[in-house]
This record gives sequence, C-alpha cells and structure tokens, in this order.
Amino acid sequence: MKFVIIGGDAAGMSAASRAKRTDPGLEVIVLEQTQDVSYSACGMPYNIADPGRSIDELVVRKAEVFRQKQGIDLRTGHRVEAIDPSRRTVSGTGTDRRPFVVAYDRLLIATGARPAMPDLPGIDNEGVVALKNLEDGRRIKALLRGRNAERVVILGMGYIALEMAEALRSRGIAVSLVKPRPGLLPWMAPELSAVVGETLAANGVVRHDGQRPERIEARGDRLRVVGEGLDLPADMVLVATGVVPNSEMAAAAGLALGPGGAIAVDRRVRTSVPDIYAAGDCADAFHVVTGRRVYIPLALRANRAGWAAADNVCGRPTELEGVAGTAVFKVFHLEVARSGLTMDEAAAAGFDPVSVVVTTSSRAHAHPGAGKIHVHLVGDRASGMLLGAQMVGTEGAAHRINAVAVALHAKMTVKAFVQADLSYAPPFGPVWDPLLTAANQLLKKL
Amino acid sequence: MKFVIIGGDAAGMSAASRAKRTDPGLEVIVLEQTQDVSYSACGMPYNIADPGRSIDELVVRKAEVFRQKQGIDLRTGHRVEAIDPSRRTVSGTGTDRRPFVVAYDRLLIATGARPAMPDLPGIDNEGVVALKNLEDGRRIKALLRGRNAERVVILGMGYIALEMAEALRSRGIAVSLVKPRPGLLPWMAPELSAVVGETLAANGVVRHDGQRPERIEARGDRLRVVGEGLDLPADMVLVATGVVPNSEMAAAAGLALGPGGAIAVDRRVRTSVPDIYAAGDCADAFHVVTGRRVYIPLALRANRAGWAAADNVCGRPTELEGVAGTAVFKVFHLEVARSGLTMDEAAAAGFDPVSVVVTTSSRAHAHPGAGKIHVHLVGDRASGMLLGAQMVGTEGAAHRINAVAVALHAKMTVKAFVQADLSYAPPFGPVWDPLLTAANQLLKKL
Repeated sequence: MKFVIIGGDAAGMSAASRAKRTDPGLEVIVLEQTQDVSYSACGMPYNIADPGRSIDELVVRKAEVFRQKQGIDLRTGHRVEAIDPSRRTVSGTGTDRRPFVVAYDRLLIATGARPAMPDLPGIDNEGVVALKNLEDGRRIKALLRGRNAERVVILGMGYIALEMAEALRSRGIAVSLVKPRPGLLPWMAPELSAVVGETLAANGVVRHDGQRPERIEARGDRLRVVGEGLDLPADMVLVATGVVPNSEMAAAAGLALGPGGAIAVDRRVRTSVPDIYAAGDCADAFHVVTGRRVYIPLALRANRAGWAAADNVCGRPTELEGVAGTAVFKVFHLEVARSGLTMDEAAAAGFDPVSVVVTTSSRAHAHPGAGKIHVHLVGDRASGMLLGAQMVGTEGAAHRINAVAVALHAKMTVKAFVQADLSYAPPFGPVWDPLLTAANQLLKKL
Repeated sequence: MKFVIIGGDAAGMSAASRAKRTDPGLEVIVLEQTQDVSYSACGMPYNIADPGRSIDELVVRKAEVFRQKQGIDLRTGHRVEAIDPSRRTVSGTGTDRRPFVVAYDRLLIATGARPAMPDLPGIDNEGVVALKNLEDGRRIKALLRGRNAERVVILGMGYIALEMAEALRSRGIAVSLVKPRPGLLPWMAPELSAVVGETLAANGVVRHDGQRPERIEARGDRLRVVGEGLDLPADMVLVATGVVPNSEMAAAAGLALGPGGAIAVDRRVRTSVPDIYAAGDCADAFHVVTGRRVYIPLALRANRAGWAAADNVCGRPTELEGVAGTAVFKVFHLEVARSGLTMDEAAAAGFDPVSVVVTTSSRAHAHPGAGKIHVHLVGDRASGMLLGAQMVGTEGAAHRINAVAVALHAKMTVKAFVQADLSYAPPFGPVWDPLLTAANQLLKKL
C-alpha cells in the first residue's frame, strides 16, 4: 500500500515516521516543496534573538535520517499542485522544474499554513518579511545582520509578534508594533492584557494599536510604514498578522472546508473525500468544550493529528477528542497562558458565561522572589461547567494552565474543580493554588 | 450557637475565619496552646536559610487581627486536655496555669500533628530539635547562631529533611542525613530518586541511609550521633522522621481513629461522634483514587477541611472528595512532585499496576537553558485508569503535576489522558509535554 503525504513539516513527518514504525512494509512517500523537514518552527524567535546561533540548530532530524534510517521516501523540492481523487493521484513540479505524478492508496494533506499578508502597497518590498518556515528565519537573520538593523516595525500583535518583539529587543533593536484594531490581545481579559501591555512598555516596545498602516514605502534600502498619523522608519518590516491554511488545492479537489477555510476533518482526521486525510495547520479540529469545529493551528495538534492519520492508515482506528485551545507564550519575563473559551467565545457558543479575575502571589507568603500571577476563569451559569482560563504571571502560568486543560477534557464543573488536590510548596505558590482561589471566587458567582 | 475550635493553626483558623464570615452571629472560640496562630509553617526551611530574616516574617495574620477585625474569640495559651462529648465541653489549662472549661454546640478538633521522635537515648539532649511550629523555627535559628553551627546531622530523609539540608547548606553548614532504612525516598521510582541522590551529593550533603543511629551523645555543648559504623559530630541534630497526629485526646473521648492513628472523618469532616468535626494534620481523608482512608497531612487539605467544617457547622452542607496525594518540594535546583499512587500503593489497593519512566528535555529542541525532566507514570492494566505520577526535574515539575491531579479526580483513563491538549511553547517544554510522552509509552504497556 502506498501512503502519500503532502508536506514534510510537523504533521507530515510525524505521520510518515509513525506509519513506517507501525508498518515497515508500507510505502511512505513525502512530497515537500522546500528543502527543510522536521524543524522547530516555534523556536525561531529564540534563535533569531541570538546572532551567534545558526538557524539550522532548529533542525530536529535531517532529511537523510528519514530516508536512510527510517526508510521514508522523502522527496524534497517537490511542490504538489493538484490532487485528483478520481484517479487517486497527486501532481506537481519537482526539482529542476520537472513535472511529476504520484499515485496514492491513502493520502495525507499536511500543507500547513502561510502568513496572512495584508493587502498593502509595498508589502512585496525588499525587507518586508514574515516568519513561518526555516527559510523565513534565515532571511530575517540575514537581513538583521546585513542591514545592521536598528529599527524594526512589526505588523500584528499576536503571540508571534510579541515573541519577536522580545527577540529583537534582546538584540538592542528598536521595535514598534502596529495593528488597525485597538486593544492589545483583545481575546484576553482587560486586567490581564494590561499586564502584558505594561511589560511591553517597560521593555521599550512601542505600540500603535488602533492605527491602520496604509503603505510600506521603500526609501533606498530602508522602509517606512505609513498611515494616518503614522510614519515609522524601519530597517525591516515583519508581518505577523496571523496565518491562513494552505487549503486551496484541497478545495479545488472538492474537499469540504471548515472554519477559517481550513480543511474539514472528522475525529479520525478524515476529510470529506474517501482515503484522504488532513492534519496540521491546514486542517480544523473539534473543540472539546463546544463540540464545534475550530481552526486553532498549533504544534501539538499537528503532531497528534499526524500520528492519528498514520494510525488510521495503518488499520489502527484512532479518534481524536479535539483541542481545548490551550496556548502559551513567553513575552519578556511574563508567561501568558490560555485554555478553553473566552467570555465572548462562550457567549457565542450559547453558554451563559460568568468570569472572575484574581491576582495572587506566585509563591507562598513571605517567600522571596515572588511575582504576581493573574487568573481569569470562565464558567457557565447554566451547567456550572468550567469553560476556560487565562493566566499571566512572572512564573507558574505556562504549566499551571494544563490543570485547566485536563479539566476541560473531563468536562468538569467549577464545583468539582475547586476540590482538586493541587500541589503546594512555598517556592511554587500559595497554599491555595491561584487556580483554586479563582475557582472558589467563580463558584460564588455561579 | 457556640463553635469551639481546638487549635489555631491552618485548619483551625481557616475554619474560624470562614465560619465568622459566613455567620457573623456565630460565637467562635479558638483555644490555642501556643502564642502563634496563622503562620506559614512550610516556609520555615526557607526562612532558616537566611540568618537575616526573622521567623516572625512567616506570620500571615496576627492574633489581634483575628480578635478585633474578625470578632473571633481567640484564646492563645490555652491548652485543651480533655473533651467530654456527653457534657459537650472541653477542658484544659489556660494562661497562668488556670484550669478552664468551655461548652460547645459544635466542636472542631484541629490539633495538628507533632514530630515523630525516635526512641533513642539522648533524644532529649540540648541541641536536638524538630521542626513543626514557629517556636521550633525560633529555637533552630537561635541554636545555629548561638553555636555558630558548622555541622548538623538530620535524622530522616523525607521532604522536610531535604528542604532543611538545602537551607543549611546555603548557610555553609555541613549536613549529614541518617536513616535506618536503606534507599533515598523509597516511595519513588529508583530512576527518579537516583536523580535526587546525585543532586544531594553534588551539593555536599552526606547520606547515611541504611545506618541506624543508636544514641545521641552530648559532649560539652556539642553532640555526636552514634550507631554501628556511625559517629557523626554535630552542633545540632534535627529530627525529621515524620509526624504523628495529635489524636490521643480524641481517642480518649471515644472518637474513632483511622490510618496512622489519625482521627477518622467522613466526607463532611465529621468524626464518629455527633457535632464533633476534625480537620488538618490530626485527621484522615479519603483518597480519590482508592476511595480508602489515608493519612496524608498536608497544608492544602488542612485549609480546605477547615473551610468544610465551617461550612457544615454554618448549615451549608459541604462534602470533600478527598486527596490525590499531590505533594511537591524543592531540593537545591530540583523540583520533585508526585500525585496519586506509587506502584506499591497501587498493588496494595488491588490494582494491577504498570509503569513507565521517561526522561525528556524541560524545553523544546535547541532551546537554551533546558534541563532534564523525569516522569514516572502508573496505570492500571485492568481498568486502563491513570493511577499516579512522579516527576523530578530542574524545572516544570511542580506545576505540571497538577494536570495529573485533576486527571485523578476525574478518574481518567490513560487513553483519555493522552488526548489532553496540554500547553506548548519552546521555553516551557517539548511539543509533546513530558506527561504526554510518558502517557503514550504507558498506553502501549496497558
């Protein structure tokens, strides 16, 4: 049997490796348009922070290892351009621009996502970059070095924008963030996003939210981001305004799409067309709290869905529950975390949401080195269910959020959650974990 | 109505405050034998580490605040010696050695626990100390200063012994740990306890496990801990060989005892005698995994049981699910965590336990500053249930364990746990959280 995979990133290579381990007799062909496979994309901001490190340090496993040690037919430089479900083939352009056609018995689409590029005059100017794949990382490092960059403008204020702001500040580069909509991290409880805002300001990051950039002008080999009341010089402009799924080819082949234009998959990561699976940033998922389809492209889901595709292809029926929307990032000395629904998302999903915000110490009373930790917890008045959480703190947010993630999978009520026997020792938190303090407060409001 | 509480520590004062908040008309009398109430007992090792800090910094709320602001009739220096359930009174000796009798409508026993002192000649020598209450902390700080201590022998190797070893080493004091049974942290998976052992050795802590101390000799104002093949000079000997519940008075009054001689309580923290509750380190609890009674005296349970007692006294029926046995401590640069059952405990409880140990990086591939994190996960072959976890690592163990704690409360199977959408960002862990990697391995063995 021939298992063909389009895309050699997290989902694709996870699927390829697992399928080959499970069934060494399976023919596994991976068609990847770039030369890079199996790298830590999320690690790029941290690598870019350090001019002394090569971007290639982020490569987890080289193409040769997949080919020779794992027996995967990995074809880099192969760009798939069309899927023909009736003939069960994929076709495209290979190295040296040669066309190719490959037949499949089972197909996995793992084409990922690409940066959403705003429709802005000058967006194609030299020095305007995005950060998605390793080649982007290389280009950014080369630009920063080559232009001896002192000023960078970032379009967008999501987690990649913030991680990159930290990375660039650590190199002494002036950073301005620009986005048309007002408000920093608008999905976040205002009390929590204010803390992030203070940290950005304290670290010299200049925010222009609620200011629409209208064009990017080139002046010699430098740039200016210009809009109403906005004229920011830049040695580099980084576009970090979200991603869009690479699903056009799937749509052209007749596959159904879900939210955000991602390829719709069921709990076995099957698409609407027989024998075609989709996994990773090109595909959607079910949300464990709402049961509805969502597009939340993150690394763990990509890896997990890749495994699930392989297991299902190899005759081991595997269902994925879905995602809880757990996400964390670091910005300067802050840990930012979320899982589950925001108030708005909860209301939109038909819940009757109630929330609290509590601020406690990150360590026990009188323990040295403590910071603050802020918790926003959302519950449903009708069912008493826990719906979501957000946390911001100098420590203890990134891993603590996992207690909420598990509770969401278990469909726990707030009343049950407050009973949880969470850990306590003075260096790690107060006796009542901040999550429990928040849950106790929330329980009173339900 | 008169709510009398014996003991003004975590459970007692939690109950008193909550009862008075809920029902300001309630007469709440707290009888506490010492002068100290409401302090962070668990913070003592960290306070002792710093000669410049006063032990009184650990006081969270002073007696006067409870009296004047909260309206609690707090009687310090009042030692209760007997409970008479037939007359509904408690009696004892007050300040100035005056006898007292207090009548109750509802009684909460929150007498805590005391250090288990081994039956050893010389155990009463000057300079032999334990660490349980604030007075012990004062005495230890005075001894270390007064004797300009250079060498301390600690009897025991539990978490207090290890926290104190770190505290004393940070003051440049030589530390030897002694215990009769061989093996460090015998409840722990050997692969994990070996990591703790290496850390102790690397920090100059000398271990004598499997060596029974036979006597503590006084030589002038210094001590020697002597046994077969053992002769350790010491300026101070710290006894940290566990605790025993202060339940004798309850037993004398006819109350049933549970495991470890702790006062047996039901899910409403009621004892076997009507209108008498017990909470804190003197009482037992149900284990959420086994459903059986256990004696695991820890701070969160004490606070929570104090609240539950108050709620039940105030006519708000409240049941506690029980404890998962979650515990964490720090020892030098390591975080040590556990929740749920060990292999031995699981087998003793009638499960058919299987376990794995995995070691992964504490951060993503190529992320600077990573350490190792070791996970031991236990599941039940018969039911597929997750039964327990242990973690040791340079970072990320103390809060990560909470995901397991919640899963244990939710009675999750390992198969369900591997689906959890746990957090990922390069500074905080690999894409597959170490717990998920362990759960994936464990699933294969079930």
